[in-house]
Amino acid sequence: MEKELKKNLDVVTETLSAARNYWHACSILNYDQQTISPKKAKELQGETEAFLGNQAFQLLKSKKFIKAMEYIYENRAELGKYDSALAKSLYREYQRIKRITPKMHHEFSLVYNKAYVDWLEAKEASDFSRFEKSLKKVRDVSMKKISLRKEHKNTDYDHLLDDYETGMTESVLDETFGACKERLIPFLEKIKKSNKKIRTDFMRRKAPQAAQEKLAQYLLDLIRYDFSRGAISTTEHPFMDDLAVDDVRVTTHYYEENFASSMFSVLHEGGHALFGQNTPRVHYKHFIEDGKTLGMHESVSRFYENRIGRSRAFIDLLYPKTKELFPEVFSDVSAEEFYEAVNVVNPSLIRIEADEFTYTFHIIIRYELEKMIINEGVKISDLPKLWADKYEEYLGVRPDCDKTGVLQDVHWSGGFGYFPTYALGNMYNAMYFNKFKEKYDIDKLVSGSNFDIISDWMTKHVYKKADRLDPKDWILDITGREFTPKDFLDYLEEKFGALYGIS
Amino acid sequence: MEKELKKNLDVVTETLSAARNYWHACSILNYDQQTISPKKAKELQGETEAFLGNQAFQLLKSKKFIKAMEYIYENRAELGKYDSALAKSLYREYQRIKRITPKMHHEFSLVYNKAYVDWLEAKEASDFSRFEKSLKKVRDVSMKKISLRKEHKNTDYDHLLDDYETGMTESVLDETFGACKERLIPFLEKIKKSNKKIRTDFMRRKAPQAAQEKLAQYLLDLIRYDFSRGAISTTEHPFMDDLAVDDVRVTTHYYEENFASSMFSVLHEGGHALFGQNTPRVHYKHFIEDGKTLGMHESVSRFYENRIGRSRAFIDLLYPKTKELFPEVFSDVSAEEFYEAVNVVNPSLIRIEADEFTYTFHIIIRYELEKMIINEGVKISDLPKLWADKYEEYLGVRPDCDKTGVLQDVHWSGGFGYFPTYALGNMYNAMYFNKFKEKYDIDKLVSGSNFDIISDWMTKHVYKKADRLDPKDWILDITGREFTPKDFLDYLEEKFGALYGIS
Repeated sequence: MEKELKKNLDVVTETLSAARNYWHACSILNYDQQTISPKKAKELQGETEAFLGNQAFQLLKSKKFIKAMEYIYENRAELGKYDSALAKSLYREYQRIKRITPKMHHEFSLVYNKAYVDWLEAKEASDFSRFEKSLKKVRDVSMKKISLRKEHKNTDYDHLLDDYETGMTESVLDETFGACKERLIPFLEKIKKSNKKIRTDFMRRKAPQAAQEKLAQYLLDLIRYDFSRGAISTTEHPFMDDLAVDDVRVTTHYYEENFASSMFSVLHEGGHALFGQNTPRVHYKHFIEDGKTLGMHESVSRFYENRIGRSRAFIDLLYPKTKELFPEVFSDVSAEEFYEAVNVVNPSLIRIEADEFTYTFHIIIRYELEKMIINEGVKISDLPKLWADKYEEYLGVRPDCDKTGVLQDVHWSGGFGYFPTYALGNMYNAMYFNKFKEKYDIDKLVSGSNFDIISDWMTKHVYKKADRLDPKDWILDITGREFTPKDFLDYLEEKFGALYGIS
Repeated sequence: MEKELKKNLDVVTETLSAARNYWHACSILNYDQQTISPKKAKELQGETEAFLGNQAFQLLKSKKFIKAMEYIYENRAELGKYDSALAKSLYREYQRIKRITPKMHHEFSLVYNKAYVDWLEAKEASDFSRFEKSLKKVRDVSMKKISLRKEHKNTDYDHLLDDYETGMTESVLDETFGACKERLIPFLEKIKKSNKKIRTDFMRRKAPQAAQEKLAQYLLDLIRYDFSRGAISTTEHPFMDDLAVDDVRVTTHYYEENFASSMFSVLHEGGHALFGQNTPRVHYKHFIEDGKTLGMHESVSRFYENRIGRSRAFIDLLYPKTKELFPEVFSDVSAEEFYEAVNVVNPSLIRIEADEFTYTFHIIIRYELEKMIINEGVKISDLPKLWADKYEEYLGVRPDCDKTGVLQDVHWSGGFGYFPTYALGNMYNAMYFNKFKEKYDIDKLVSGSNFDIISDWMTKHVYKKADRLDPKDWILDITGREFTPKDFLDYLEEKFGALYGIS
């Protein structure tokens, strides 16, 4: 590497090293805020986080850094693959924040923080009006951010989609979700008409928290989560947090009358965590460990939650353990009944409790509302009704309060464009599951508790290049095929066709 | 206030506002590190904390800040009482750090952090040699800090004492501990010779963690801890953390075969927390909320742990609750037996499990060793033996491994001079307990569950001026008397004399 390039690269990495201290602290503050910090302390804590995030932002906006970053970007052909990926991602991020001043950045953070605190209160009170003002401000921030960008996109919402899932557009999503609706709506009708009876009574039997905690530990050990580089905490809305190279944590909640809620959230967040824990260490060295998109991340969490966790092989493997931990729940339940119960299709109000089949509708609803919010400037105060109408249209259920309706998700307090990544995750993993199946009998791996092999395959094929490739190229690299929802829709029809006796 | 003074005061408070963000983040990082963060993540987390702490340090070392701080100090007579207290404390702190550069400050932080991590490992392995190198470096840092000070003190160790307990000196402590030894050593002999039989068998009966958690909640509610501005976490070594104005947390540990360990640690840390939660809000506004010394803090925690928590009235109050929560522990135990068991005198190895009577010896041992480390440059490798010899001399017990000996406390990984504050706390609260008794029948307040009155009295007399006064003036202000260990020694002899039938 020529001397000048080396010098500029050093400026970049030294700045990022300093910034990383702030990001690390912000992550810990955020984790604390969501797991343990007292109610009355959350707002101040968010302010401290905003202050620290802003220090990092200022570092990235310094002339010295920008000059060096532009230099390495222009000369990226001479860089190694990791540094070249870094140069590309920094350059792209810079285009996004170019006209955002540190002052604006700080104000935006405070808006998100206040919105989060207001959302918590509004949800507790099941009163959307307490969140409305903050949500309007969040939309204003989104619109402001969009207006500050130079790059042309087809629609305003496309900018936000691109933030979370690089390269994703409304036109791709319209087509994708169109295909979903075309196949899933008539299939849901068939399921509704089926005579199949599925028992679910035992799923609400009391399962003591202490036993659920043991199950969480067991599941994480099973899928090869490394506790020496991680931890598990309790929270209201489970999430995974990738705080540092050797600190990737999982959170869950425990409902004594719904043990499955914690069980599947642990598999979901545990999946995210495996992606984090198996990120090549060299990526941290080159500051590209966050290159993976949310869609990629969701593909892995849903791989473990659904493709593995809701499979017959997995339930058979787990059944003796759950029977031992929750003897009263499983006293008169067979493994087959357990499998059917965790896969029962039941159009319902709450996304995070939704079954695998109807889940996509929850995302389509949010996607359609987000387009209305961003592109069409719909009145924020109309959202509760619009939300309810969509639920009635797609799922035939209608929330009778804001808590189980428009206030159920935290996401909008931090902006728009996130939700579609959840659905994309299902579609990505359906594609690479089929690739995996070409070489391995996955059910057999699960039955034999060979989670090392599963994790190794995922590391080698799914995780390895995720930080360096855009989703389009990444899924092509793994599967040799272009992105399509077809594998996912085929899988759903096959699985639920068999379960409900639909030919 | 004249314009120039106002201008300088603004510079000071704006700088402190910025610094407070870093301190807040450091507190959260430290809390996380001690309660949940994974083993392999702790060192990096400490590094991030050191980086952030250093940002704050740099702010306080800026010329602009120092000039403004000196200006307000010189003109403090014209400031209100809060700002005047701030000016004094800043000026005093500045004398301490005057010649410490930000680079040195950062290096020192890394030494403490590494020592903490090494101590954790060494203790787990019960192997002092793994901690030795780090501990030497901690001593080097202490000696370096002392050598950088201009102010004259009688001994090197006096500088360190003053850091934790403003104005405290070896000569006062030698006299104080001398008085303790003179009265407590012969009294301990009498206790040993007493025929009193105290049952303690039931104290090791199994108490499920879930029930202990309920007891912790009950105790904190009882003493009027405010959970909306606090939280409780699990840790190895219980501590209280005063993270922000509305965020004062308590930690504890749960040993299923020693419920009293958690019970008294909750009362102890809960006491600290009440001091934090009842600090006047105006002190936060004027940045003097940390003006209280460790000795003052310990006086409150030990007031709740011992003066209240180990009193007959309190045990009588608690007995029905513990019987309900731990039916198997208390199946054949009377309230009187419970009272006697939590007050049994038993010379032993572990300070934090020590009884109220022998506790002071644990402190005297550490005090004497610290003087040897700092003033006499004793070889660090000799500490395990010196430690064991002292335990044998004062308590007649000898540790057979480092874990229960020299490695038991975390404190030395962060420097020397802290321990004496624990003993001083007992002496302070003995003095103000007697003052409190002049107006109230405290046992009656406890029996009647009138913890509001207790907390109000403490707030009005003990907490109110703590941030603004030095310990000497503070105890005089509360009690009208000069500091003395006499009240504490009288109390011990009276209480344990009655318990052991010694006249």
